Amino acid sequence: MHPNIRTDLAVEAKELWAESAPETTALPGVKAEDIKCRGYDVTRVQILNREGERALNKPQGTYVTVELDALIRREEDAFSRGVEAIREQLLPLLGLVKNDSVLVVGLGNRAITPDAIGPVTAKHTLATRHLVEQVPEHFGNFRRVTVVQTGVLGTTGMESAEVVRALASQFRPDRIIAVDALASRKLSRICRTVQISDTGIAPGSGVGNHRAELSRETLGVPVIAVGVPTVVDAGTLAADLLEESGRGQIAPNDFGDFGGGMIVTPKEIDTQVADISKLVGYALNCTLHEGLTVEDVDMLTS
Amino acid sequence: MHPNIRTDLAVEAKELWAESAPETTALPGVKAEDIKCRGYDVTRVQILNREGERALNKPQGTYVTVELDALIRREEDAFSRGVEAIREQLLPLLGLVKNDSVLVVGLGNRAITPDAIGPVTAKHTLATRHLVEQVPEHFGNFRRVTVVQTGVLGTTGMESAEVVRALASQFRPDRIIAVDALASRKLSRICRTVQISDTGIAPGSGVGNHRAELSRETLGVPVIAVGVPTVVDAGTLAADLLEESGRGQIAPNDFGDFGGGMIVTPKEIDTQVADISKLVGYALNCTLHEGLTVEDVDMLTS
Amino acid sequence: MHPNIRTDLAVEAKELWAESAPETTALPGVKAEDIKCRGYDVTRVQILNREGERALNKPQGTYVTVELDALIRREEDAFSRGVEAIREQLLPLLGLVKNDSVLVVGLGNRAITPDAIGPVTAKHTLATRHLVEQVPEHFGNFRRVTVVQTGVLGTTGMESAEVVRALASQFRPDRIIAVDALASRKLSRICRTVQISDTGIAPGSGVGNHRAELSRETLGVPVIAVGVPTVVDAGTLAADLLEESGRGQIAPNDFGDFGGGMIVTPKEIDTQVADISKLVGYALNCTLHEGLTVEDVDMLTS
Amino acid sequence: MHPNIRTDLAVEAKELWAESAPETTALPGVKAEDIKCRGYDVTRVQILNREGERALNKPQGTYVTVELDALIRREEDAFSRGVEAIREQLLPLLGLVKNDSVLVVGLGNRAITPDAIGPVTAKHTLATRHLVEQVPEHFGNFRRVTVVQTGVLGTTGMESAEVVRALASQFRPDRIIAVDALASRKLSRICRTVQISDTGIAPGSGVGNHRAELSRETLGVPVIAVGVPTVVDAGTLAADLLEESGRGQIAPNDFGDFGGGMIVTPKEIDTQVADISKLVGYALNCTLHEGLTVEDVDMLTS
Repeated sequence: MHPNIRTDLAVEAKELWAESAPETTALPGVKAEDIKCRGYDVTRVQILNREGERALNKPQGTYVTVELDALIRREEDAFSRGVEAIREQLLPLLGLVKNDSVLVVGLGNRAITPDAIGPVTAKHTLATRHLVEQVPEHFGNFRRVTVVQTGVLGTTGMESAEVVRALASQFRPDRIIAVDALASRKLSRICRTVQISDTGIAPGSGVGNHRAELSRETLGVPVIAVGVPTVVDAGTLAADLLEESGRGQIAPNDFGDFGGGMIVTPKEIDTQVADISKLVGYALNCTLHEGLTVEDVDMLTS
Repeated sequence: MHPNIRTDLAVEAKELWAESAPETTALPGVKAEDIKCRGYDVTRVQILNREGERALNKPQGTYVTVELDALIRREEDAFSRGVEAIREQLLPLLGLVKNDSVLVVGLGNRAITPDAIGPVTAKHTLATRHLVEQVPEHFGNFRRVTVVQTGVLGTTGMESAEVVRALASQFRPDRIIAVDALASRKLSRICRTVQISDTGIAPGSGVGNHRAELSRETLGVPVIAVGVPTVVDAGTLAADLLEESGRGQIAPNDFGDFGGGMIVTPKEIDTQVADISKLVGYALNCTLHEGLTVEDVDMLTS
Repeated sequence: MHPNIRTDLAVEAKELWAESAPETTALPGVKAEDIKCRGYDVTRVQILNREGERALNKPQGTYVTVELDALIRREEDAFSRGVEAIREQLLPLLGLVKNDSVLVVGLGNRAITPDAIGPVTAKHTLATRHLVEQVPEHFGNFRRVTVVQTGVLGTTGMESAEVVRALASQFRPDRIIAVDALASRKLSRICRTVQISDTGIAPGSGVGNHRAELSRETLGVPVIAVGVPTVVDAGTLAADLLEESGRGQIAPNDFGDFGGGMIVTPKEIDTQVADISKLVGYALNCTLHEGLTVEDVDMLTS
Repeated sequence: MHPNIRTDLAVEAKELWAESAPETTALPGVKAEDIKCRGYDVTRVQILNREGERALNKPQGTYVTVELDALIRREEDAFSRGVEAIREQLLPLLGLVKNDSVLVVGLGNRAITPDAIGPVTAKHTLATRHLVEQVPEHFGNFRRVTVVQTGVLGTTGMESAEVVRALASQFRPDRIIAVDALASRKLSRICRTVQISDTGIAPGSGVGNHRAELSRETLGVPVIAVGVPTVVDAGTLAADLLEESGRGQIAPNDFGDFGGGMIVTPKEIDTQVADISKLVGYALNCTLHEGLTVEDVDMLTS
């Protein structure tokens, strides 16, 4: 893999590997397949062993990418088909049984538009634990779901990972779903892709610096990550552009402090984050509560 | 004490007792004194034993009330004198020693203006734990402070008290300061009074329903409560008015569902909550970090 | 009519008149009828002449009230039936023809929860003027709609009515729809009623002080008012309670400054305002753009 | 000047000209000087005639840049010195006489962090017109100031320039101050510079697409622009980087859709926008109202 090219997407890590070794056809320790789901392109990358981990620089596990171009084009039924596509990919990775409870964590900084995927998704996710426990006669068919926005280190003094550990310890959920903004390598994937994985959140680039590890190892419970790329690291983009333009290779770090703290994002990032966070929130609701429809969620939220 | 008159202020509970027993002069088990502090009227009520608890319907401990009329009138220096007055009253109740860490909890619902005292105060409170630990050469003289807004049961599925218990267990602060909106009996006290007590937050009326007990008993660490009355319970107000107008006594519950979920609040509640939350936040900062001034806080926040 | 009982609802003004003259059956200059619309109770009060104006203390015109209890109970289809009911009542009062343009005005203070009906409704209302003019091939079937939140005198220095006059003069809409929070007399109507009238907004109590007249007289274009009661004036409530409890009559002003700036509102005002503002916003969209459905609006907003 | 290099800063336009003609020393039709003001570096560029306009691709007038590095480093007194430096540069460009009224316009989209300079500055700017007119005995020494956030075309259907024209026509201010986010060419200037000019806002790149001309020609009243660079156009940055790295020249448009709608911004853009918007707001208050101090503004805002 190219050094210094930053991406949180397994599908891009695989592309980078292919670029670096064009003559090789099989990537050792990695299995990949492309399918269609509800009209959307879905790619499933499985990292099977240590060899695959080294090749893609990501932990062992399954990474599913759903490409949501139809949503951006606001095609007929795109929203409900998107909800269904995410649900179908998320459900097997969650592996829930009846009465399992779930903690949904919205990571990121609401005040920075491209980092707000987690908080805005959390806002669209129904918290039901108190209803199931207090009004079982009406909400007995719902799963117990708790929802938290962990906030920002600068305003809380607490790392997101520490907050989640505290809540996991207190509420003992059977699964944790962590929603976060990601960095991709390509502008064309920004706000057009959802990545679902069963590996938790690994420390990485992301948008903010809030990404201490959230995983089964650190939390004692399976952590499913749902991520949406909203930025490209500025150094990564510049390096990519140089190479594409045939002007030779350059490492992002060559640009000095440029690659350090700068991100590239679309001008219309506000509506794109709003749209895709709503989609992910609705998809979580329909995945977690059997039989719940998009119309039901509309009625239960405002 | 009058049945059904709801107040979170010890100073009002004492007034009510006096009204119900006009011929008696000494309230058993209760000690009270009025002082001046930085030009503000301060009342200190101490509930000394079970007899006092029964008389005032509040747990044993110290309750200090600072009356902030000068702030509302935007008098010269009112803000900095108010910060200083709260600091002087709060400091002995906290009883901090060097290196003690503090968790500040903003209780309440930001989306309901009179319930937003906790969240808005939290916004003005500096989180410093990460700075002290990561950059001790610059922040070594600061106290380690963490800040949390517990959010609302309806959107998280978790009781505030449970969230605080989880964080106290994880971060092991030496003190907890819980900031909340209160219900008073009299309109004239709304947004003009701060009550500080060392008894924690007892389940009570408040504005919302988020007031499960936060106390040394439930959390294992001293809990100092800082409260600001922002509403009067509608039933309480009506009962009071009837009596004052000489038309006989009536219990709030007589008004049916009227007393249940209704609150009385001023029309300009937004600016009043903004003003007094800023004061309380600044007072917390100046209390927790020795030598910090109002000007310093201005520079450290935006 | 009782002196000093404050209500913005014509249906309540009529009740008050009936209470003050129980032996009389016909109210001169006023016509009223009760109907059912999409399962909701609808009352239509018409003030026909000066005699009716004096009796109800409201300007001549039509006032339609839709009672939305089913929405609060979250009954099946309550939302879409509510949208349809408001649409059917609003359409004849608007009297639009093809290509007429509309300015939707959200009045009130977003920072005060019960005063936020106007701003939150505005947020749910689609602005289309620029799309119709710039991309007619896609949006040619939409009506040209502009949307404004006039803000608050304290933060702008401009009266809402002046801002609307400026915009009306610049954009020359064929109709103005002004959405605002109202004061009702009865707690049971809070967030359960929508009043639609063709008389504009008359100076009155409301929640804030932002209600200088918006009418055909002041703006030169028909002004349809859509209002939702979110508060009861505290003095009005107390007077009503006293009388109901058989303790004699009292004027709100007798309570001194109590009646002046105090409002009574439910504790759960945040979700109620969110729910009913969404309903009104969707109803405006479906009224203004022929053939638009609730599902379409879902897809066009986030 | 380089084709396709986008900058809203006159000081950068001058740099670009110098780079394109290194052997030439005098730029025709342009006068420039560097001074120190309250410890800050200030550059004043005057475009004197058509020749200067063509060279720098900006309209005739004065452009003053204040470099605010000390603020970012949170130096002692940096805030109050910054307020004073902006005041001293702004005052002669405004040329106000007693009783002149001013309309302050916050341009941009609050929901996109780097575009929020205008709205957040507006929030810190005191609206006083209603106070001066209604309570002259207390506010007689204040200038009449109105403040507006024009909102976003997508949510209002109205261009910002049209809204300002409507308000200028209604309220007849003697001056308009338009505050907006700008695009710079260099990352090192982001949130470290304020540009003040007497030429109004010219159509340009900026962050959003909200920059139809606001000028004396279109509004009939002098328009002073206050701008803060918060982004670099992604294509501009890439072209600059390529050239710096000695790999030859490339036009931003060569990168296809990359240069189109993408912006580069720092990860900590939220706190930087908050800090500098507060500075600009305070500077406006201290400039517009004679004798007002930073402490006064603290007390008058929350």
